[in-house]
Amino acid sequence: MQKINLADKLSLFSEHFRPHVIAELNGQQLKLAKFTGEFIWHSHEQEDELFYVLSGRFCMQLRDGDIWVEEGEMLLVPAGVEHCPRADAECAVLLFEPASTVNTGDADSELRIEPEELARV
Amino acid sequence: MQKINLADKLSLFSEHFRPHVIAELNGQQLKLAKFTGEFIWHSHEQEDELFYVLSGRFCMQLRDGDIWVEEGEMLLVPAGVEHCPRADAECAVLLFEPASTVNTGDADSELRIEPEELARV
Repeated sequence: MQKINLADKLSLFSEHFRPHVIAELNGQQLKLAKFTGEFIWHSHEQEDELFYVLSGRFCMQLRDGDIWVEEGEMLLVPAGVEHCPRADAECAVLLFEPASTVNTGDADSELRIEPEELARV
Repeated sequence: MQKINLADKLSLFSEHFRPHVIAELNGQQLKLAKFTGEFIWHSHEQEDELFYVLSGRFCMQLRDGDIWVEEGEMLLVPAGVEHCPRADAECAVLLFEPASTVNTGDADSELRIEPEELARV
């Protein structure tokens, strides 16, 4: 059993919008990601998704309005809700979601990463 | 859909070793807790449990040694592993675990809180 230092883990990658798995428990995964720019509109049919901002801020675009999520804040996006994150400057995010979650959800996108192909740090 | 500010939520309670539920997703719960002093030795038969330190530090006592967990660090305690958290000064912790998790696990203790009786903030 080893503790996990989030700053150390964040220093191990630089790609944007590529979640890196840091822990797995109870069929769920904890992932770190760095947001800069805009991702794509998508939803997850089965999975609720939680975003917790470790540094910076990002805008969660939703069909009925935007929500800015700041450092120390989290946003829970329920299954089925379309969303598209966007960040004007780099934002470090901790994600909590089922291990089955595909980053691009229902969207047909070249940004898709299969769960078994996610990087681990 | 509303964002959750962890500092705001932490300001709403002061009890020690009483988890407060702040969000539920995919059958899991996110809870905030404040540790001061020592809890009790226990394990969870079914549930892995994740502790993330928001402020301060605490010592996770394990049968084969202690692990100090500092601000910005997390520790995953797998199901079945006996543990007992202890903090010399107040430590704010974010817990991520199944909604079925009982705070005192398998221990026979007056500190037990049934999952349906957990406070929500």
